Amino acid sequence: MAQVPLVTLTTDFGTADGYAGTMKGVILGIAPDARLVDVSHEVAPQGVREAAYVLYTAYPFFPSHTVHLVVVDPGVGGARRPIALRTPAGTFVGPDNGVFSYVMAREPVEALVELADPRYRLTCVSRTFHGRDVFAPAAAHLAAGVPIADLGPPVADPITLPLPSLEVTPGGVVGEVLHVDRFGNVVTSIGRLLWDGDELALDAVFAEAKARFDAAGATVAVAGQEIAGVRRTYAEIAPGEMLALVGSSGHLEIAVREGSAARALGVHPGDEVVLRF
Amino acid sequence: MAQVPLVTLTTDFGTADGYAGTMKGVILGIAPDARLVDVSHEVAPQGVREAAYVLYTAYPFFPSHTVHLVVVDPGVGGARRPIALRTPAGTFVGPDNGVFSYVMAREPVEALVELADPRYRLTCVSRTFHGRDVFAPAAAHLAAGVPIADLGPPVADPITLPLPSLEVTPGGVVGEVLHVDRFGNVVTSIGRLLWDGDELALDAVFAEAKARFDAAGATVAVAGQEIAGVRRTYAEIAPGEMLALVGSSGHLEIAVREGSAARALGVHPGDEVVLRF
Amino acid sequence: MAQVPLVTLTTDFGTADGYAGTMKGVILGIAPDARLVDVSHEVAPQGVREAAYVLYTAYPFFPSHTVHLVVVDPGVGGARRPIALRTPAGTFVGPDNGVFSYVMAREPVEALVELADPRYRLTCVSRTFHGRDVFAPAAAHLAAGVPIADLGPPVADPITLPLPSLEVTPGGVVGEVLHVDRFGNVVTSIGRLLWDGDELALDAVFAEAKARFDAAGATVAVAGQEIAGVRRTYAEIAPGEMLALVGSSGHLEIAVREGSAARALGVHPGDEVVLRF
Repeated sequence: MAQVPLVTLTTDFGTADGYAGTMKGVILGIAPDARLVDVSHEVAPQGVREAAYVLYTAYPFFPSHTVHLVVVDPGVGGARRPIALRTPAGTFVGPDNGVFSYVMAREPVEALVELADPRYRLTCVSRTFHGRDVFAPAAAHLAAGVPIADLGPPVADPITLPLPSLEVTPGGVVGEVLHVDRFGNVVTSIGRLLWDGDELALDAVFAEAKARFDAAGATVAVAGQEIAGVRRTYAEIAPGEMLALVGSSGHLEIAVREGSAARALGVHPGDEVVLRF
Repeated sequence: MAQVPLVTLTTDFGTADGYAGTMKGVILGIAPDARLVDVSHEVAPQGVREAAYVLYTAYPFFPSHTVHLVVVDPGVGGARRPIALRTPAGTFVGPDNGVFSYVMAREPVEALVELADPRYRLTCVSRTFHGRDVFAPAAAHLAAGVPIADLGPPVADPITLPLPSLEVTPGGVVGEVLHVDRFGNVVTSIGRLLWDGDELALDAVFAEAKARFDAAGATVAVAGQEIAGVRRTYAEIAPGEMLALVGSSGHLEIAVREGSAARALGVHPGDEVVLRF
Repeated sequence: MAQVPLVTLTTDFGTADGYAGTMKGVILGIAPDARLVDVSHEVAPQGVREAAYVLYTAYPFFPSHTVHLVVVDPGVGGARRPIALRTPAGTFVGPDNGVFSYVMAREPVEALVELADPRYRLTCVSRTFHGRDVFAPAAAHLAAGVPIADLGPPVADPITLPLPSLEVTPGGVVGEVLHVDRFGNVVTSIGRLLWDGDELALDAVFAEAKARFDAAGATVAVAGQEIAGVRRTYAEIAPGEMLALVGSSGHLEIAVREGSAARALGVHPGDEVVLRF
């Protein structure tokens, strides 16, 4: 049996104006069987880096035949190219502004094309809403089985964002705040941490720095504060207390149980975080 | 193969209380195969005119067999009729309070009925939530193929809102602010603008006023400010600057690139806008 | 023909971070045909009681084969058990923290199990996001037809919240504020009210107190104010006025027509409400 076409949407459109719904109308007009899943429409306006992060946490949990449509597009109507890329973990459609940087850092890119063929756009393309007129049709056609190479010529030089700061030293790891979530949890760029039985370790990807260390003896320094120990779960502390733990994406997080660490610390994306062990 | 039943939802219910989800439960109980698409649940409470606008921008991009369910219903429980109307561009279900005015101004109405037949309502109809008890069942039955005439008697005199102000004069067009979107873009009632090659024109619908004009030489006056020129795209100006352009719905918009024109201008729906050429 | 698998989602995840979308990816990876409906992702963070209420208003309107997934989970990673329960009105999956108390008070529980079998979890289970790693897979397998008993051993002692305060006296009913909705409507615990023709009555469930009373002569006391009469509909009063009425869930509500009763009264969940008749 054929796979059910699956398209996710990640945008900064909000949900009040009907922009996201309009894109879905376009998709279902082209691929009536497509299943649509909202990843987020609440990315901060023009928040390319935030969209890249949200996508990075979500796409690995979708089937590999999923088409991930991302429209955070401050350069709409200008020279930036509309692109699609295929990886073994999924296919991605959106503007060439770096929003797929984290995907491309983790997945091999099997194909990367510019969305140039007018057959896979709406007949009338506006200059301000390529989500509706260019990206949604491309995602729908890809989900419906059109080969990616049909959509346009290869792109050899996609725009990429600098990857989040992350430096492994003998005594620890220096990173930065990557994201603050709805609960006020502070997600850091210090990733690839894992619990191996009872020990905390950096995973094998850091070949040069693979290390096991005493989680209880480690400290996390951020915003002038020191947090003692890396915990396994919120349940180890009382409500209202702050802790460091390995979050659901494998990154070091700072959280206040049933509270907001971001508010308590006053931190923002880009601020330095140090894990000492 | 039969078409996949498709129902969109536009309400002022928000997404916190489960009202929209409850309507979907009702729809899927009647039409298990129906596909559901949220257009917006964030219309301002009782914002009939705003809902009319959001629907107007979205419905043309859905397949024509779509049923558009709109529940912004300050008169629930009173004398206002529940209605359904069919046009070549879609079928619409909601309260008879003018919310379909813009649809009826643009599309020929093939059928318009009152939702009077109790077979197409829930058994027990509350006095405060007709979205769940009257409108959702009607939309589901229509999506599942029940002929619109079965739902109730014809309505000859639907309520209509005054259409947005728009006057074409020899020297320009006088309109009003129609909507402020999530980005702070100011959408005006000055529509039917199109780029024809390199020239900006009013389209043929304004038969008496069809005109081409020098977009660069035009000015837009709003809230005591003058904006020089009508641009093609955001990319023509620097971030933080204000511009006028033809938006994705074919209407004149005022925007600040990567900022909020509504905040910069302090305008609201209903304020006058003049395009001089 | 087989029923279409149907899963609803009720969480406190918000919609900005992609957490809810990620759960949907997991579900569709396991049950590709499942239909997904959002009930709410805007439950207040850790608002177990609010989630219990939102679920209570929504689930009766879904087909009985629906799986309702609820993830409001302040105890994630601690000792609280992940559970599933089956009732004639639906199947429910979530943490054992009382979030299903209102369901269990109304529906007979046919089966109640701990989600212990690792075959029905993701391979790698994080300590902070059981919504993705434990609850979503369980809901998907249940929706796809796995018998509930396969998921783990029976649970005999689920956690339950105290039911909302509600005392029937000869002269009236004493209850509490249960919920404030997006419109500022104040929903109270005074439920099981129904209009029987022209009379207002407590339904038969209050066997000891079954009563008919003069709706126009009743008064509602809340926050130091008295509201005269219980109305049938908003349409009986002018915009801006306050009224008491029987809301769409059969509970006494206090509302301001086209305004916010919660703001006007300054009430919160737990505040006392008295209906005198």
